[in-house]
Amino acid sequence: MSKTRVVIALGGNALQRNGEVTAEAQKSVAEKIGQTIAKLSEQYEIVIAHGNGPQVGNILIHEEIGNTKTAPAMPLETAVAMSQGQIGYWLSQAIDNAFARNRQGRKVVSIVTQVVVNRDDPAFRRPTKPIGEFYTAKQALKLAKTRGWEMREDSGRGYRRVVPSPKPIDIVERKEIMSLVQNGTIVIAVGGGGIPVTRSKVLKILRGVDAVIDKDLAAAKLAELIKADIFVSVTAVPNAYLNYGQPDQIALGMLTPAEVTAHIKAGHFGVGSMLPKIQAASSFASKKRIGIITSPENLELSLKRRAGTIVQG
Amino acid sequence: MSKTRVVIALGGNALQRNGEVTAEAQKSVAEKIGQTIAKLSEQYEIVIAHGNGPQVGNILIHEEIGNTKTAPAMPLETAVAMSQGQIGYWLSQAIDNAFARNRQGRKVVSIVTQVVVNRDDPAFRRPTKPIGEFYTAKQALKLAKTRGWEMREDSGRGYRRVVPSPKPIDIVERKEIMSLVQNGTIVIAVGGGGIPVTRSKVLKILRGVDAVIDKDLAAAKLAELIKADIFVSVTAVPNAYLNYGQPDQIALGMLTPAEVTAHIKAGHFGVGSMLPKIQAASSFASKKRIGIITSPENLELSLKRRAGTIVQG
Repeated sequence: MSKTRVVIALGGNALQRNGEVTAEAQKSVAEKIGQTIAKLSEQYEIVIAHGNGPQVGNILIHEEIGNTKTAPAMPLETAVAMSQGQIGYWLSQAIDNAFARNRQGRKVVSIVTQVVVNRDDPAFRRPTKPIGEFYTAKQALKLAKTRGWEMREDSGRGYRRVVPSPKPIDIVERKEIMSLVQNGTIVIAVGGGGIPVTRSKVLKILRGVDAVIDKDLAAAKLAELIKADIFVSVTAVPNAYLNYGQPDQIALGMLTPAEVTAHIKAGHFGVGSMLPKIQAASSFASKKRIGIITSPENLELSLKRRAGTIVQG
Repeated sequence: MSKTRVVIALGGNALQRNGEVTAEAQKSVAEKIGQTIAKLSEQYEIVIAHGNGPQVGNILIHEEIGNTKTAPAMPLETAVAMSQGQIGYWLSQAIDNAFARNRQGRKVVSIVTQVVVNRDDPAFRRPTKPIGEFYTAKQALKLAKTRGWEMREDSGRGYRRVVPSPKPIDIVERKEIMSLVQNGTIVIAVGGGGIPVTRSKVLKILRGVDAVIDKDLAAAKLAELIKADIFVSVTAVPNAYLNYGQPDQIALGMLTPAEVTAHIKAGHFGVGSMLPKIQAASSFASKKRIGIITSPENLELSLKRRAGTIVQG
């Protein structure tokens, strides 16, 4: 009998416990995640998706500060690719090392992944996702002129570039990911929601676009395309909640996509935090497939439906 | 009958024709390389290895200029991983697009690749490879103290960091690369010579090290491990030469590893330019396997042994 196939989406902050952002600190957090994943791989086929918020943020800051004619700054889509190399390396090495410590055979690989978005996605007309450095009003005006960036005032801390956050509609490398997973290899893919690309209608030519794809939605799309049984969004809290952070907050256990929709309508989930996670879990869920939201500590239990918020159709 | 399996090593400058280094310029050069590769894939199983000299150089410059406590510079080994994401993305998209234009099915993927080096390699006692920015003597002294970097005066243009260039002894992801190639997928791997890692003797724990592995030697090692039939180093000149650049220069055609060794002893090949390429081709060559040095224009012909320098045992 084939193993249960699971796509696990790790939060972008998952590697930055205690706010430490050096490579050494992030690698040491990755080693702990690696142990969990190596253990789970005895029972499950696993694909790891991961966020890249803090990491691509730092890459963009460095690229912009060092931007010269001889060493030009890389555009956002290429910076996402760079963050996939960076985080993919850390995670695959950490999982490798966990296998080595456990004397298990090693089988893990990290894939540079392009995710297709629709160029007619309304998100392109209304950029909302702030990225990179904070700027003064004067700097922001100049960047808007010279680089064509859309700038917006962010939480009173200055101006930041905002980019579109379109919906993922396809994963370019899905066949290769599928073939590796079927072989029993742990695959790290769609890092940072994937490198955003459009695909032309007739010739199907791919072109990178400066955008950020939500990593939970991209991971849930991949889960659907590779016929996974379970999609899990691993985050800082053990559940999704009603009335989150209020005295009467209620942790959600088992629920249906219809119930999720009703809770979304009632405004229970934070935009840009819990909302995309519960949307991703719910869009993936069906009679036979479950979408989960859980914490790293409860990951293993949640896969057995004994913890976490579990959405099933 | 199975196709001939070829590992193609592209020079790090291959993406920077006319010295243009923006992402757009490099992607447009990649598109042309993509056309060649897509065409060759009808007859050959292909793995692409690539250099990363100019690209990782720019990443390191940006990382150092923007180095702060909140956005710390990434170490060299992680910068190599970032360059693998960057160049791997450009090349895989370019090959994808060539397949789309030719209405061929797409099959290409880029793999984050770790290459194992021996921690006892004498290169670690004698760093020789200059990387990153040029510094003044005063800056160099400070970096040597604060970062533990080994600094060396470089061609009268200032001081640069020098790092070890150890020999590749294993490729961590070789099984996954092999399985994808056997499936008919073009694999982009060991970018920039691979992320250099050591492997501990008993537990086999991997650790990144700040070093640069020669991309031709790493690609030839991969060719050996995945049982390729041909290793090709694609460079700016159509052949290796005796008396290169002199009036009596002679282009080398077919020759044996023993002949290569004799020519190396006679000092015919430039250290850091043709020497590692011919060493890689020669180390791979045997009775049944050939090592080639050729230009992009002559790549296809050279695979049929009708151009290039061909080493066979």
